[in-house]
Amino acid sequence: MPTVEKTGLAANAAGRMVPESVNGRRQVPYLGAGKYWPAGLKASAPIRTAANYPANGDKRVSDLETALRKCGLRDGMVISSHHHLRDGDRVALMALKAAARLGVKDLMWFPSASFPSQKDAIELMEAGVIDHIEGSMNGPLGDYCTQGKMRGMGVLRSHGGRWQAIQDGEVHIDVAIIAAPAADAFGNCDGSHGKSACGSLGFALADSIYADYVIVVTDNLVPFPCVPWQIQGNNVDFVVEVDSIGDPAKIVSGTTQITRSPDRLRIAEFVARFLQDAGIMRNGFSFQAGSGGISLAFVSYLKEMMKQAGVKARFVRGGSTKYLVELLEEGLTDYILDGQTFDLDGVRSLANNSRHLATSPFTSYNYHGKGSFASMVDAVVLGATEVDTDFNANVVTHSDGRLLHGIGGWQNCLAAGCTILALPSFRDRIPVIVDDVTTLCGPGELIDVVVTERGIAINPLRQDLIDAVKGSKLPIRPLEDIKNEVQRICGGKPQPRKHSDRAVAIVKWVDGTVLDTVWQTA
Amino acid sequence: MPTVEKTGLAANAAGRMVPESVNGRRQVPYLGAGKYWPAGLKASAPIRTAANYPANGDKRVSDLETALRKCGLRDGMVISSHHHLRDGDRVALMALKAAARLGVKDLMWFPSASFPSQKDAIELMEAGVIDHIEGSMNGPLGDYCTQGKMRGMGVLRSHGGRWQAIQDGEVHIDVAIIAAPAADAFGNCDGSHGKSACGSLGFALADSIYADYVIVVTDNLVPFPCVPWQIQGNNVDFVVEVDSIGDPAKIVSGTTQITRSPDRLRIAEFVARFLQDAGIMRNGFSFQAGSGGISLAFVSYLKEMMKQAGVKARFVRGGSTKYLVELLEEGLTDYILDGQTFDLDGVRSLANNSRHLATSPFTSYNYHGKGSFASMVDAVVLGATEVDTDFNANVVTHSDGRLLHGIGGWQNCLAAGCTILALPSFRDRIPVIVDDVTTLCGPGELIDVVVTERGIAINPLRQDLIDAVKGSKLPIRPLEDIKNEVQRICGGKPQPRKHSDRAVAIVKWVDGTVLDTVWQTA
Repeated sequence: MPTVEKTGLAANAAGRMVPESVNGRRQVPYLGAGKYWPAGLKASAPIRTAANYPANGDKRVSDLETALRKCGLRDGMVISSHHHLRDGDRVALMALKAAARLGVKDLMWFPSASFPSQKDAIELMEAGVIDHIEGSMNGPLGDYCTQGKMRGMGVLRSHGGRWQAIQDGEVHIDVAIIAAPAADAFGNCDGSHGKSACGSLGFALADSIYADYVIVVTDNLVPFPCVPWQIQGNNVDFVVEVDSIGDPAKIVSGTTQITRSPDRLRIAEFVARFLQDAGIMRNGFSFQAGSGGISLAFVSYLKEMMKQAGVKARFVRGGSTKYLVELLEEGLTDYILDGQTFDLDGVRSLANNSRHLATSPFTSYNYHGKGSFASMVDAVVLGATEVDTDFNANVVTHSDGRLLHGIGGWQNCLAAGCTILALPSFRDRIPVIVDDVTTLCGPGELIDVVVTERGIAINPLRQDLIDAVKGSKLPIRPLEDIKNEVQRICGGKPQPRKHSDRAVAIVKWVDGTVLDTVWQTA
Repeated sequence: MPTVEKTGLAANAAGRMVPESVNGRRQVPYLGAGKYWPAGLKASAPIRTAANYPANGDKRVSDLETALRKCGLRDGMVISSHHHLRDGDRVALMALKAAARLGVKDLMWFPSASFPSQKDAIELMEAGVIDHIEGSMNGPLGDYCTQGKMRGMGVLRSHGGRWQAIQDGEVHIDVAIIAAPAADAFGNCDGSHGKSACGSLGFALADSIYADYVIVVTDNLVPFPCVPWQIQGNNVDFVVEVDSIGDPAKIVSGTTQITRSPDRLRIAEFVARFLQDAGIMRNGFSFQAGSGGISLAFVSYLKEMMKQAGVKARFVRGGSTKYLVELLEEGLTDYILDGQTFDLDGVRSLANNSRHLATSPFTSYNYHGKGSFASMVDAVVLGATEVDTDFNANVVTHSDGRLLHGIGGWQNCLAAGCTILALPSFRDRIPVIVDDVTTLCGPGELIDVVVTERGIAINPLRQDLIDAVKGSKLPIRPLEDIKNEVQRICGGKPQPRKHSDRAVAIVKWVDGTVLDTVWQTA
């Protein structure tokens, strides 16, 4: 039986009970949005000398075990990896299994996100090779965590929060593993070319800058210079060639399909009409939408409205998909600023169109920078698993308490000028609008609009938006009303959930404070 | 009378006497190429929070004085600037004069290089606003320094050494001033577009990352996003709009003309033929050449040889000029990796050709990284003011001891596979090949070939090169022979120089150790 550390709990500014210490590190409870003031200097990597690296720039070693050994890998270290290859990634497990063969124990695995195909990591946790995971856990790994089986505590951070944690020195990466669809022997690498092309490698940028050691793993070695060099070889220690870094069929998401559900299409249309009626859709505006079915349908509706109104966006933020690429190619936006490339059209566009730009969590999301792009986006359309009547939302757990979803850039996007949650009002006869979210991921004060198939609720804090849509034919209603209607349809409130009093994971806010706790399921 | 600090002197591994302390900081004497092992962590900037920056990304303030005041500028601080606009730059003096109006004193000015048009800085030194300059000093400022009039000591660093010093924490920049030919209100900026376009802004990159405060000054504000963003707004505090950042006529160098001197053309041809005969000019090779008349002529000769031999380079390193751009546009090289853009053809090419890439001193030159591009260049062609018979060379002072030239990337380039000095054997009847260089800038063990109009000398340490050109018709001769011949022509050795025993500046090696001293002229 794993032994999760004993720690006291403290109530944070959102009224949530959170651990005072996590994995041996003291925590600051959430103080409110924009209330925590960081101090001190950023973390930094060791000073190296070119005298220690091959003058001809050839940093190749024969295999991952050799590379890890040369990095001095030992018990208790932190290994990072990235989810650019999503459910098709083979490199993270390859590295963790190589570490297992070297006999090391108690590693902290620090992926930018983990996926169902990486469930073999459970065996490595059972064997004591991995102590715990800090990073989003999609599916089986999250489930394993909420069953209380992981030794250490899970830590969920947004994409921007991951950069912030590395930059602020909350997480020190000993060895970063970067899977690269194209790389040269010096370690310059890029994701937009090669048989395993996946688009931007932005999630690995922080690791390349701050880790003690950086290993690039590629199945497509190109002559120096590998261009563009989104990851710079000057930060890389070793390059390892392998036959395949991933399964191309799973590298791009299979989910980038427009919804066919009439209810969900209705939600998407409401969102687009809201942007129009509120005056957000105007020349030079900007927006961000994810890769879910509702988001894609929203882009499709908005595109038609933009064409009819003769409106052009200055930029759209990806997760890029073919729907955003079409906007760019049809001249409806000047730029795509792309944090993550979701389909092959996105990969092709990023590789070939100079107006389709790879961004990183630093430019887009890092809250502990001198601003970020996130707050300059006029409107963002997001999903959620639950939202309460104070507009607080959950994106990681289900109503049964199971941790099944990653947090992505969701929290960071809440900084946009208008944050819209686009949600069906219930799923599997379970209401999505609740009295109290299972896990708090986004404070209600930052969520402006909830759009469901039954109506649109505007946060009372946003009187400007309420005023802007006065006279609109959209079904604007109080969130409480929608909730009550849904409860009637579903036969009452969701079952009060049961959980133990044992914390198994925490959700960080974008500033590194602890927003909420995920509890072991009962 | 300025008071230069009293300090002891120590002999370094090159046998040069160097100050043990400079501007209050203990120094490490040069230990030999590749012999100094750095320790510790890189420097880092303070952690900031987006809560302190405008959510709409608009960081504009009315003028430089306001920006400097908001940065908390005070006595003794370090202000940095950059020489992308070369002799046409107006921004550095604008900032220093704004500082003077705020009444601050004893600043350290830390330019990437200073130019004759910035000689007003002398008045600011006389007035005590500037204590001293660390950075290359071309012309009047260098002369002022060697006259012993600067209070603090000058510190000359190569482009890579400047990155190393910032990164290693030897120089902490309080306020970085970045002149930008294009910028958005968030601070993203770029040099390849606008009326003052100058090409790459790579020299400002370190400052943007490591300085406490960063001010972007532009005469060409563009809507967000300014693309490409070679300098990222996420590192920028304030943006100031001005009418003009520089004189476009002087921004690009006036010196990028092929020499017409028969002797110098002969040198250029020898260099090109040497690369051919030594087998360095082969498919996939790389080279770097500067913007001087001999270098340009060399590129011209080499181009014809490449065409005749059907040889294509993988990359050429700029300082880009129209001659390199022609190589790229005619398919004779896959890439230009450009550290500094010297003429309008270079600016145009960088802006429009995706195979013309902006680099930075980090990628190209930083010795305290995990390698750099410099050692991957097959051959580099450089100038010098003097070279001795052990191949040691000088690039900053004249034989009279006056400091008149910047050091540029010269030292960093010595890491190339084959380092060639291309020099007339005498200038103004003063021999260039000497018994002992006035100032040591490059250790002879790293200089492989000296090409003069009277013959080519190969460093005895490079038996491989000596073997490679066996049978060549090139006039290969011992350097001693060439020296003796030139002394006969010039009527003897150069006059033994006289200087005081007062150190006024030091020359750093690429690893931050002290390679030599510049003395006050007698």
